[in-house]
Amino acid sequence: LKNPSFSNRGKSLEDELNESNDYYLSRGIAVIHKKPVPVQVVKVSYPARSAARITEAYFGTPSTTDYNGVWKGIYVDFEAKETKIKTSFPLNNIKEHQIQHMQNVTNAGGFAFLIIKFTTLERYFIVPFEMVERKWDRMKAGGRKSITLLEFENTSVEVQPGYIPRLDYLNAVETLMKLYDDKIER
Amino acid sequence: LKNPSFSNRGKSLEDELNESNDYYLSRGIAVIHKKPVPVQVVKVSYPARSAARITEAYFGTPSTTDYNGVWKGIYVDFEAKETKIKTSFPLNNIKEHQIQHMQNVTNAGGFAFLIIKFTTLERYFIVPFEMVERKWDRMKAGGRKSITLLEFENTSVEVQPGYIPRLDYLNAVETLMKLYDDKIER
Ligand SMILES: [Mg+2]
Ligand SMILES: [Mg+2]
Repeated sequence: LKNPSFSNRGKSLEDELNESNDYYLSRGIAVIHKKPVPVQVVKVSYPARSAARITEAYFGTPSTTDYNGVWKGIYVDFEAKETKIKTSFPLNNIKEHQIQHMQNVTNAGGFAFLIIKFTTLERYFIVPFEMVERKWDRMKAGGRKSITLLEFENTSVEVQPGYIPRLDYLNAVETLMKLYDDKIER
Repeated sequence: LKNPSFSNRGKSLEDELNESNDYYLSRGIAVIHKKPVPVQVVKVSYPARSAARITEAYFGTPSTTDYNGVWKGIYVDFEAKETKIKTSFPLNNIKEHQIQHMQNVTNAGGFAFLIIKFTTLERYFIVPFEMVERKWDRMKAGGRKSITLLEFENTSVEVQPGYIPRLDYLNAVETLMKLYDDKIER
């Protein structure tokens, strides 16, 4: 079931996550949804006998991350990102306000993380916010503007794509949380 | 500070909640956001030197509730509703899938509730999902199709509108959770 040769090549990370979330919901495991993209509606027409039609609108800037929800009583919140690059993930894919949001979530007792898909490699990493923040701060201090593949391999949890669910990312989150608990106990 | 005579008459419940959430966020108390209304985009034009413009789109149906977030490590999820009626809240203001969503949230360890504003009375009630569900089931069994004001007074927590924050609804949630804990302990 984990053979990438029959995998859903070309499927977007968003589709893979939505499928996985549908699975979690149907099994009563977790309630996690993608937030709609904010749209600022300017003009709407109301044709007779049909649905209201938006005729002028603009894309807004999301104030938070892509996904949030609840799992085992834990508030989970994450941003999903894809990159075609094979050796690193450029930090300019993340916005300052998303870093701020994940910091706020962490402070309020939630668990924030990133899901990074290296599309060319078909590899997926679940990255705790704490790790992202360290790399973000490194960049702000004049350091490199990306996170290397090796850094993902060393400080995050890789998810093997499967069939059902496509991406069992909550299993990886569980592993991550155990690692963090161990660190705190030491 | 709780004198309704200088209150924000005419302000929508959504505005009042957004203001309150801004306050909670700025004080590091909680991270709670309104979810954007889903919009299905059909056509977009890309004029030179200006923002992408959506020229055809339709309103989608929200699959969840209005608001969610994290507070003191607790996942909170709620729907906000206004009514002009003075004596009861009609249950047809709530959709079946929202009941289902709140049930799912409760099962996954989150805290789901409703905020009801009686606009004419300027009274606000924080209603635990458990109470809403009982009334929903009563309706399904052929009973009344609304929740009476008296029922709100007896089985939910009223919030007095204030100045900053406008609606300290998390304080009411805290009261509710204590009531529920007491009930469980007995
Ligand atoms: Mg994304
Ligand atoms: Mg509402």
